[in-house]
Amino acid sequence: MSKHVIGIDIGGTNLRGAVVDSKGKILMRHSVSSDAHIGIGNLIDNMINLINSLRKDYKITGIGIGMPGIIDAKNGVITQAPNIKNAADYPIRKILKNKIKPKLPIFIENDANCAALGEYRYGAGIGLSTLIMITLGTGVGGGIILDGKLWNGAHGMGGEIGHIKIYPGGNKCNCGHRGCLESYASLSGMKLKIKKGIKENRINKNLLEKIKSTHEDRLPELFFKEAKNGNRFSKKLWEEFGTALGLGISTLTNLLNPEIVVIGGGIAGAWQTFIPSTKKAVKENTLIGPYNKLKIDRSKLKDDAGILGAASLVI
Amino acid sequence: MSKHVIGIDIGGTNLRGAVVDSKGKILMRHSVSSDAHIGIGNLIDNMINLINSLRKDYKITGIGIGMPGIIDAKNGVITQAPNIKNAADYPIRKILKNKIKPKLPIFIENDANCAALGEYRYGAGIGLSTLIMITLGTGVGGGIILDGKLWNGAHGMGGEIGHIKIYPGGNKCNCGHRGCLESYASLSGMKLKIKKGIKENRINKNLLEKIKSTHEDRLPELFFKEAKNGNRFSKKLWEEFGTALGLGISTLTNLLNPEIVVIGGGIAGAWQTFIPSTKKAVKENTLIGPYNKLKIDRSKLKDDAGILGAASLVI
Repeated sequence: MSKHVIGIDIGGTNLRGAVVDSKGKILMRHSVSSDAHIGIGNLIDNMINLINSLRKDYKITGIGIGMPGIIDAKNGVITQAPNIKNAADYPIRKILKNKIKPKLPIFIENDANCAALGEYRYGAGIGLSTLIMITLGTGVGGGIILDGKLWNGAHGMGGEIGHIKIYPGGNKCNCGHRGCLESYASLSGMKLKIKKGIKENRINKNLLEKIKSTHEDRLPELFFKEAKNGNRFSKKLWEEFGTALGLGISTLTNLLNPEIVVIGGGIAGAWQTFIPSTKKAVKENTLIGPYNKLKIDRSKLKDDAGILGAASLVI
Repeated sequence: MSKHVIGIDIGGTNLRGAVVDSKGKILMRHSVSSDAHIGIGNLIDNMINLINSLRKDYKITGIGIGMPGIIDAKNGVITQAPNIKNAADYPIRKILKNKIKPKLPIFIENDANCAALGEYRYGAGIGLSTLIMITLGTGVGGGIILDGKLWNGAHGMGGEIGHIKIYPGGNKCNCGHRGCLESYASLSGMKLKIKKGIKENRINKNLLEKIKSTHEDRLPELFFKEAKNGNRFSKKLWEEFGTALGLGISTLTNLLNPEIVVIGGGIAGAWQTFIPSTKKAVKENTLIGPYNKLKIDRSKLKDDAGILGAASLVI
């Protein structure tokens, strides 16, 4: 009999789940509101409903869950999850085990690590054994797979690709320190650059109006279009974004000599505007040996990387 | 019966070997000239003599060899070794196997990786499972051990800690690129700084004389003494050295969340002059989670880390 599992991707806004077969094919999908901002209790209730609706028509053998934050995967505990209210030190696996009837094995992992696993098993990394995933969104996430095994540190606190030091003493990062990759190659980094551009009067009136009327989550799209239309500030913005990303990839490559670096997350959609600078910086900063072996590619699974990686925790 | 192995550390000048028991105790040691500059053939002949003299009085079960360069450990081939003449693509294991009678199993690994293995099994890493070794010498070497396993990349070209990008576009590094850790926290980096200091007239006449009469390999010692005696330029030199090292450790920690970073190599002797700046930079640049779990320590095995690590390839 074919083995079916449930993969769940917990986001700040939505809970996305799917029934996945052993080959990584999505058979059914479902999405509900996460209510993460209200509290972990509400999120758990929503998750139970999601799971029950997904398992109705399938024989499910386990559940894999990807979520933002620092996850103690071994013990199934959320160590820290800034975007979910009251989630610190929450024994999510134990709670879910007691609420899900009939019982199912449950696996939890950080969402960026899940995306890496997804790409590794079913996406850009098929056939390879060493892959680094970088997700570009509000911040910079990442997952490191070495010789087929996820590496997230001696205490589950590693894989923080967004906090590779790029420009010491530079931009203030969300982590409280300065000069991290995340403070250059993410939406947060873009916002810093836009703010600086406004202050220095380097943004024309037309673009300024557009910025004001755009929700900040849509800023990458706006600047993508503007760069494509030749706007100078926008082109420069993506160039600096791409260079920082390339410097980060260069350090990763000199250290870990991966077969492939996969770039995903929402902002990866602006690929063509930043990737030339990224590739230039990688070439200019990476040792020739590992450089010659390195492939840089876009996520193949896009939004499904997280769900499929979560599912693969069970498979 | 107790198992004895031979560990060999190949240097540019000397070949150092020892008989080691299964607990990492050195029973006998011997050192000969390597003649690496003359050619790989001479080095092999010297090594055979070393091995024969070491195995005379012991029942040896295998030989482990650590050497500088890019080593294809799986196939026992030197991919690249800039300090040994004619060593590129040299099938050292096969050659040695044919020359050593009676035959013994032979293992080859990069020397910095051996030092990491040595500290992991018998030194500063005893009882831990995830260790990063940084060796400070002419360059910066390193070895990464994750969950008890050496990680040197998908193609054996990783672990290049000396080429973590520290100051993009900064000092010219031996690798041909700019801003690498090695171009700040090594003898090469010190020499760049001294040269700049001379050019900018920041070095007093007295120190200038001392620099001129000191062999460049002894410069770290000279500047260690000068800093201890309060010389301003020397103190600043170690401060910048230490800060660069700290930035590198911070990136390593955010990425890999090791239990310990062990610092060895000749320049580690100047520990007290650079470690305060190192620790400051680590604190200011590392995520609080992995920072709180991190230990930074000096090599316990000093010069024997390489030999013991090489021996442990067999054990």
